[in-house]
Amino acid sequence: MSQAIQFPLGADGLPTHWYNLLSDFTEPLPPPLHPGTGEPITPDLMEALLPPTLVEQEMTGEEMIEIPQEVRDVYALYRPTPLLRAVRLEKALQTPAHIYYKYEGVSPVGSHKPNTAIPQAYYNKMAGTQRLATETGAGQWGSALAFACSIFGLECTVYMVKISFEQKPYRKLLMETYGATIHASPSDRTEFGRKMLAEDPDSRGSLGIAISEALEDRATHPETTKYSLGSVLNHVCLHQTVIGQESIQQMEMAGEEPDIVIGCSGGGSNFAGMAFPFVRKKIKEQKNYRIIAVEPASCPSMTKGELRYDFGDTAQTTPLMMMHTLGHDFMPPSIHAGGLRYHGMSPMVSHCLKLGLIEATAVPQLKVFEAAVQFARSEGIVPAPESAHGIATAIDEAIRCREENTKKVIVFNLSGHGLFDLSAYDSYLNGRMQESGDDA
Amino acid sequence: MSQAIQFPLGADGLPTHWYNLLSDFTEPLPPPLHPGTGEPITPDLMEALLPPTLVEQEMTGEEMIEIPQEVRDVYALYRPTPLLRAVRLEKALQTPAHIYYKYEGVSPVGSHKPNTAIPQAYYNKMAGTQRLATETGAGQWGSALAFACSIFGLECTVYMVKISFEQKPYRKLLMETYGATIHASPSDRTEFGRKMLAEDPDSRGSLGIAISEALEDRATHPETTKYSLGSVLNHVCLHQTVIGQESIQQMEMAGEEPDIVIGCSGGGSNFAGMAFPFVRKKIKEQKNYRIIAVEPASCPSMTKGELRYDFGDTAQTTPLMMMHTLGHDFMPPSIHAGGLRYHGMSPMVSHCLKLGLIEATAVPQLKVFEAAVQFARSEGIVPAPESAHGIATAIDEAIRCREENTKKVIVFNLSGHGLFDLSAYDSYLNGRMQESGDDA
Repeated sequence: MSQAIQFPLGADGLPTHWYNLLSDFTEPLPPPLHPGTGEPITPDLMEALLPPTLVEQEMTGEEMIEIPQEVRDVYALYRPTPLLRAVRLEKALQTPAHIYYKYEGVSPVGSHKPNTAIPQAYYNKMAGTQRLATETGAGQWGSALAFACSIFGLECTVYMVKISFEQKPYRKLLMETYGATIHASPSDRTEFGRKMLAEDPDSRGSLGIAISEALEDRATHPETTKYSLGSVLNHVCLHQTVIGQESIQQMEMAGEEPDIVIGCSGGGSNFAGMAFPFVRKKIKEQKNYRIIAVEPASCPSMTKGELRYDFGDTAQTTPLMMMHTLGHDFMPPSIHAGGLRYHGMSPMVSHCLKLGLIEATAVPQLKVFEAAVQFARSEGIVPAPESAHGIATAIDEAIRCREENTKKVIVFNLSGHGLFDLSAYDSYLNGRMQESGDDA
Repeated sequence: MSQAIQFPLGADGLPTHWYNLLSDFTEPLPPPLHPGTGEPITPDLMEALLPPTLVEQEMTGEEMIEIPQEVRDVYALYRPTPLLRAVRLEKALQTPAHIYYKYEGVSPVGSHKPNTAIPQAYYNKMAGTQRLATETGAGQWGSALAFACSIFGLECTVYMVKISFEQKPYRKLLMETYGATIHASPSDRTEFGRKMLAEDPDSRGSLGIAISEALEDRATHPETTKYSLGSVLNHVCLHQTVIGQESIQQMEMAGEEPDIVIGCSGGGSNFAGMAFPFVRKKIKEQKNYRIIAVEPASCPSMTKGELRYDFGDTAQTTPLMMMHTLGHDFMPPSIHAGGLRYHGMSPMVSHCLKLGLIEATAVPQLKVFEAAVQFARSEGIVPAPESAHGIATAIDEAIRCREENTKKVIVFNLSGHGLFDLSAYDSYLNGRMQESGDDA
C-alpha cells in the first residue's frame, strides 16, 4: 500500500474558469421554449427569475468563463478537493482495475452543491437581490444555498420535499443554523402547495412540486426575491465543471488516463461537473473514454424516459426543456437517495446522451447500499446514497475487469458524504430497506 | 478578500514523525503510579492493556518517532488538513487581528480523533489483537476507532456515555456502519456498569464510568482484546502532534508567526496535538507564544481542579496519574460538548500548565454556542461544540485586539465539525439551552 493514494493540488490548482460545453456541441442544444408561444425563451423572460449574469451564463456560447475572485475566495474554503485512489477497495475486490475517486464531501455542507451555490449567491448579491427562494430534495442543495447566502448576506427560503424533511431532520437544522427558513413541501405557503395538499393530504412531495412552490414564492415577491435552482440548468452544470477540471489535473499527477468516468445523476449537475471536462477531451482530443451516468432504477429518466420537451416542474410553470423525462407529473417512489428523485434530466446531459458522448445505467437501491457499505468499510468514507450509485457502477466495472483480467482505470465522483443519511444505513444494515418505497 | 485564505500542503507536507514533548520537558513528568504499591508503573503491567509499541511510545524519551508508512497511507485519506484564514470572521469582528484555524473536520469521521485511532489500530493489528474495547463521550472517538478498526480488520466494542448515546443517535449509527458494536454506558454488560445502574438507574453516564467498563471488558477477555483510549495518555498526545507540525508549516506559508495558539481541552489530546509543536519552539527557540487551553466552565479541571495523583476512571482501576482533576468521582453536568466532560486532564498538558508553558481558561456553554453560530454564519463551517470553546476564546482575543487596537496573529484548532451536533444548535437557536444541565 505504499503507492500514492492522494493527489493534492495546491492553491494554484483551483480552476480560474468554468468550462462551457455548449461551445463544443457538434449539434446545438435545442433551446428552452415558452409554454404559451412555443417560441424560444428570451433573456428578458428569464431575468424575472435569475440575475442577468446567470441568464447570460445560461445561454452563452463562450467556451471559458472566468470565475470571480470573490467566488474563488469562498471556493478556497474546501477547493481543490481531494482525488484519491481506492487501494483498499481494489484489494477487497481483487481487481486489476485502478479505482480513483474525486471527493466533494469535504465542503462545509458535505457535497458538491456549494460549487454553484456560491456563484449563484454572489451574482444575486451583486444584482441587489435580497432573498433567494429554492427547493431541495435530500437537503444537500438547500444546505449549500443556505451556506452561500449566509456568507454573502442574503435571506434564503427553502421548500424541502416532505419525505426528506421527515427522513433528514438534521438537514433542516443545518439550514437553520445558517439562518435560512425551511418549509416542508407541499406546504400551505403557496397556492400550488395548498392545491397539492387538497388533492393528497399525505403527499410526500417531489422535487417537481417543490420547484413549483419556490417559483410561486418568487413570482409573488418580485421586488425582493429571485429563484435559485441547484441542478438541471446550463449555468449550474457550468459552475460544477471545477470538479472535472481538477480531476483531470489530478489524474495527470497520478500518471494515469481514465478508461471509465462515472457519476450519479439525478438532475445531472454533479455528473455534468465531473463529466463535461472529460467530454471536452473526447470531442477535441478524440479520447475514447466511457462516461457513465448512473441513476436509480426507481427513477430512470435516462434509461426508461423519453427525450422530449417537458416542464421542469409539476405545476407546468417553467419553460419547456428538451430532456429525458418520465413526465412532469411522475411521482418517484420514496427512496433514500432523495437527491435523485427528479422526473427529468439536465438538457445538456440529455443532449450528451443523445449524441452518444455518454452512456446511462440504472441501479436498484439495495445494490446501491451494498456498495456503499463495502466502500465505507474499505475506504473509510461513508458515502451519500446518491453518490453510492456511482460506487455501485464502479464496483461492477472493477469486477468485470477481474473476470476479463483486464486492467482499466476507473474514476468516479464521490459527490458527498452520508453523515446525514445514517438512518438509511441503519435501515439497510438491519434488513428493513426495500428496493423502493418506505422501509419495513 | 483577495488575500490567500487557504494554505494547502502537498503530500510531502504530511509529517514523517510524531513529536514527543517528553523529550523536552525541563522538569520530568511525574510517572504513573501503581495504585496498590504506589510504585511507578512498569511496562509489563501496561502491556496487559496496550500492545508493546504503544507502551514504548507512552514512556519513551525519544524526541521524534517515525510514522509507519501504513499509517501515513491512511492519514493520506484526509491529511494534510487545511489551515485557513478566517477573513470573514475578522471582518464581522472588525478586528485588526489575523485569525487562522486548522481544520481537522475533513477527516472521514469529522474530527481529529483518527490521528491516533489509525496508529492504535495499526499497532494492535501488528501485535495480533483481535478486538479493541474503548469508551466514547460525544462519539467522536468511538467513530474514529470504529473507522480505523474497519480499515485494519479489527473488531471494535464501544461503551458510549449514555447522555451522548441519547443526544447523538447518528454517532451510534456511524459506528455501526463501520461494523462496530456499541453499548450505552453505564451498561449491564459489565459488573461495574451494573453497580452504577443499581446505584442510579437513571445515570447519564460519564467518561470515567465508560472507561471503567471498557477496561473491565478488556480484563475479562485477555486473550483476544486490548484497550484503547482516545485522549489523556502520552502516546495519544504524541500521535496528535501531526496537527501542530502541519500548522507550523502552513503559518510559514502564510508568512506569519502566531502570537496566540488556542485549542479546546477535555482529555487534552486535540489541544496537545496543536500546542506541543509550538511548545517545542517555545522551549528550543525561546518563542513567546501565548498557548491557551480552553475548557467548559461546567467541567473546569485546569481552572478549578487540583494538580495531584488521581485515577483516570471512576472505578479506580487505572494507574494513578499526576494531573489536574476534579476528582475521579466528579459527575460533570450534561453539556452538549460531551467530548469535554472528563474529570481529569492529560498529565502532559497538566505538566505544561504547571511549568507555565501554557495557560488555561474556561468558557460557559451559551457563550460557546454564540461563538459557534457567529463562526458558522461568517466562515461557513458549523463547528463541533467542543471545538467552539476554542472559537469563543479566539473571538475574545480578537475583540481585545480591536479594543486595544493591536494586531495579533491568532491560530486555533478547529478539531471537528458539528454535523452530528445540530440538535444542540437547535436548542440554542430556539432558546431552550441552559448554561448546563438538560435543555429546557
